[in-house]
Amino acid sequence: MSTSMYPEYPPELSEDQKSYLLTNLKDWSIAHGLAVRPAPGYVPAGQDPSGALATTAPVTLFPSLFPRLCFEQAKSVAKAYNELYSAIASDEEWLTGIVEELVEIDDFMAGLWKIHQAVKAEGYVQPLALGLFRSDYMVHVDRGSTSQPTVKQVEFNTIASSFGGLSSQVSGLHRHLHSIDAYPDEIASSVNDAALPASSSVPSLARGMAAAHKAYGISTTGLPTCVIFLVQDPERNVFDQRHLEYALNENHGVRTFRLPFGRVLQDTQVDSNRKLIYTPPQNPAKRYEVTVVYFRAGYSPDEYTSDAHWSARLQIERSTAIKCPTVLTQLAGTKKVQQVLATPHSPHLARFLPDHNQASEVLKTFAPIYPLDKSEAGMEARRLAQHPESASRYVLKPQREGGGNNIYRKAIPPFLKDLAETHWPAYILMEMIEPPAQSNTIFRNGETHSGGVICELGIYGACLWQAGTGGKREIVENFEAGYLLRTKGDQSEEGGVAAGFGAVDSPCLVDV
Amino acid sequence: MSTSMYPEYPPELSEDQKSYLLTNLKDWSIAHGLAVRPAPGYVPAGQDPSGALATTAPVTLFPSLFPRLCFEQAKSVAKAYNELYSAIASDEEWLTGIVEELVEIDDFMAGLWKIHQAVKAEGYVQPLALGLFRSDYMVHVDRGSTSQPTVKQVEFNTIASSFGGLSSQVSGLHRHLHSIDAYPDEIASSVNDAALPASSSVPSLARGMAAAHKAYGISTTGLPTCVIFLVQDPERNVFDQRHLEYALNENHGVRTFRLPFGRVLQDTQVDSNRKLIYTPPQNPAKRYEVTVVYFRAGYSPDEYTSDAHWSARLQIERSTAIKCPTVLTQLAGTKKVQQVLATPHSPHLARFLPDHNQASEVLKTFAPIYPLDKSEAGMEARRLAQHPESASRYVLKPQREGGGNNIYRKAIPPFLKDLAETHWPAYILMEMIEPPAQSNTIFRNGETHSGGVICELGIYGACLWQAGTGGKREIVENFEAGYLLRTKGDQSEEGGVAAGFGAVDSPCLVDV
Repeated sequence: MSTSMYPEYPPELSEDQKSYLLTNLKDWSIAHGLAVRPAPGYVPAGQDPSGALATTAPVTLFPSLFPRLCFEQAKSVAKAYNELYSAIASDEEWLTGIVEELVEIDDFMAGLWKIHQAVKAEGYVQPLALGLFRSDYMVHVDRGSTSQPTVKQVEFNTIASSFGGLSSQVSGLHRHLHSIDAYPDEIASSVNDAALPASSSVPSLARGMAAAHKAYGISTTGLPTCVIFLVQDPERNVFDQRHLEYALNENHGVRTFRLPFGRVLQDTQVDSNRKLIYTPPQNPAKRYEVTVVYFRAGYSPDEYTSDAHWSARLQIERSTAIKCPTVLTQLAGTKKVQQVLATPHSPHLARFLPDHNQASEVLKTFAPIYPLDKSEAGMEARRLAQHPESASRYVLKPQREGGGNNIYRKAIPPFLKDLAETHWPAYILMEMIEPPAQSNTIFRNGETHSGGVICELGIYGACLWQAGTGGKREIVENFEAGYLLRTKGDQSEEGGVAAGFGAVDSPCLVDV
Repeated sequence: MSTSMYPEYPPELSEDQKSYLLTNLKDWSIAHGLAVRPAPGYVPAGQDPSGALATTAPVTLFPSLFPRLCFEQAKSVAKAYNELYSAIASDEEWLTGIVEELVEIDDFMAGLWKIHQAVKAEGYVQPLALGLFRSDYMVHVDRGSTSQPTVKQVEFNTIASSFGGLSSQVSGLHRHLHSIDAYPDEIASSVNDAALPASSSVPSLARGMAAAHKAYGISTTGLPTCVIFLVQDPERNVFDQRHLEYALNENHGVRTFRLPFGRVLQDTQVDSNRKLIYTPPQNPAKRYEVTVVYFRAGYSPDEYTSDAHWSARLQIERSTAIKCPTVLTQLAGTKKVQQVLATPHSPHLARFLPDHNQASEVLKTFAPIYPLDKSEAGMEARRLAQHPESASRYVLKPQREGGGNNIYRKAIPPFLKDLAETHWPAYILMEMIEPPAQSNTIFRNGETHSGGVICELGIYGACLWQAGTGGKREIVENFEAGYLLRTKGDQSEEGGVAAGFGAVDSPCLVDV
């Protein structure tokens, strides 16, 4: 991490200041549903069998500093990223080349690919696909350079992009705390209304789903229609999802149901016209035609513990319901795709983004990524990764989704030494992004933790597209859909609030 | 309780139906701040020292049945009740007669009266007074009569009328549960949109406070202005208050602070012009001129544990801040006032409500109330109360506010036998209101409790008035301000969700 380009921030608080800030934070968050179900370490399951307790979602006390130009830069490429990934997901031939290399070594990807092939053999019946994407960035400061900081992409999420429901609330929280002078006067020059952007993620993501629901068309079964939220059960981060659901209900009059991934085969069936029919267990006499399946489950290998889970995924994929996402869209989000796009001098970006300006703006957000295969770039990467000195600027990441299991810097050479070389291509090597140093305090599980932090900015994108013949596609909707700022302690190099390390945040934009 | 005039309600639920209803209830409530801090029996204090846990406020699973005409009747007299109690609070001479009888036997009332007299001697400096009242009713069905049910007043609250913040949310909850078919089809004829009135209590009560804040006029000290929420600390029902505060902030741009009753003397002072100046402990360099003090504390004798509490109350009363309520307004809410108004053939109602129509509508909501003094009505009451048979239609209530300590029916004669006769005038005897029987399920502390229930409808009223010379007053604002339905198990004859027995509810209006 570079030395900081930011002003001194946040200030030390007196006991009275801290108490005022925390009291208001705790009350506002619960009053506005910025909440999670408590972790078992906080409230053991036996104490609350009905699961009626909740607590403030992990949040930062202060909005973290973030360069205004970087924030604008990330937002400005959202629509281009929607273009890019909808194009990739529509180019089955190209994806085949990517995936076939991985199925040998990645059972999960192989399973997904098999589903695609089964549905392809039978014939797809739904040309529309919905992407609710999130492109995650960090601010990168070139060491020893005087150039402006830029954002560099960490990853691109094509499935179950989370925290859009809470992000609108946390930007509301920080704006509220500012409005009641919970932030000391000495930082008034940084923290002011113009520096605290609201996140539109709740209404925007709901608008994306509503557009797909509407594009599905009228029910041909005569049944009422609904959108299915495919979920894990139990789910501690349920309010994040509920805010989207309530916005769909209230702003768009769309009926929604939560369906645990493990109940797909019990509660749905595919009729002779491949309509996906949902039967609510609480009212078996009533049936619904499903217009959209929004995946907040089924994205990770460890959720597929039996053949039934694969059958469930197949059942959804072969139906006429609009999938958010399709199997191909999920596969487009593999890190291998990010890697081939970001491999220096790659020809692929131009294939999917023929608009030079768009492609050039997207390219600026890539950090160099290398394969660990036997290509020329791969051989170069192997050299970089095996030497402690050069490895110290890199991170080794598995191709698969879901966070976790990254290998950092000097830990890379010994890790590779212990790994059979045939498995090396399951990893990519990525230049470390070097964010500017800053501090903050995280409130989680009723406790505060202060120290250095790293921020990751996610920009949501909503894209609805329709497949045509020969890989052609027509974009029906394409818009930026709000942001997420996630912040974690800089001692933990693993990412993700969901994984238990971080907090939801909002940016305090600064001109640096 | 009479046999029921209501349809069979609510229906038995299957396990799946109950699970669907409860899951949606638990999630919606937290997402919308229909919450309380958990009771110590649910989460021991040591487990959550920072107080970051919350849970669904005690609520009913179904909206309770309530006769539509009774609901309309209660709403229709709200403005007349505002007139009535603002007139009483403005008639110091009349109130003197009431209070002087009680100060001998009621130290709390004596203390309040002393404060009034001290400020009167010094001279009041704020002619404006704000009342955020709540008139509580039950449906009464005359046994053995064929007449329509009517509402009868249980009590009139002139201070700290609670649950207005949560009531808007619980009507929202029941409407949401209806909209997602959580209520089985078999009750669709009862539960429908037109039967589920929204409660405007949050915006309406905030509007009342905002009107007072505005009427206070501009700051003459040059300091910024604020509204003080005078609160108990700790407060489990904090979200109820926070919703009002946030509505004041957001809808009216009014700055608010929560001030624990025990900190009044530390954090406020009265300047030479009797302005009430608030110094936030978290920012001692900044000071505010207080426009309105909204009492959610200081209403009950057990809060005045030292002379400092009385000094605090005096400090507020003698200042220019608009009190919600003034000491006189709090005293106007004593049960003794309710009693003399509702004593059969009382002349007092006409004194305060010269409009015959208004007075007659208000009179219809009175249940007969007798003093236990040595007046003619009092001697009649003593006879009724001492005989087990006649006593079984009555409740004996202490004059003081706050709920609790009521003596019911056959328990009255032995209670009076053990009580020195000199203390009898501290009680009133009231005819029991006989509500129709019905059932419901209450969800509280993560558990459900089903059975017979009793409902109490509270109608909020907002009234801002200005004292003139010779007891004349001018009404500045007078409006109905939403409703509250509180429901408790019928085995507990004590009232009040706050006391731990009941739940917040909303009405399902029925034509009976």
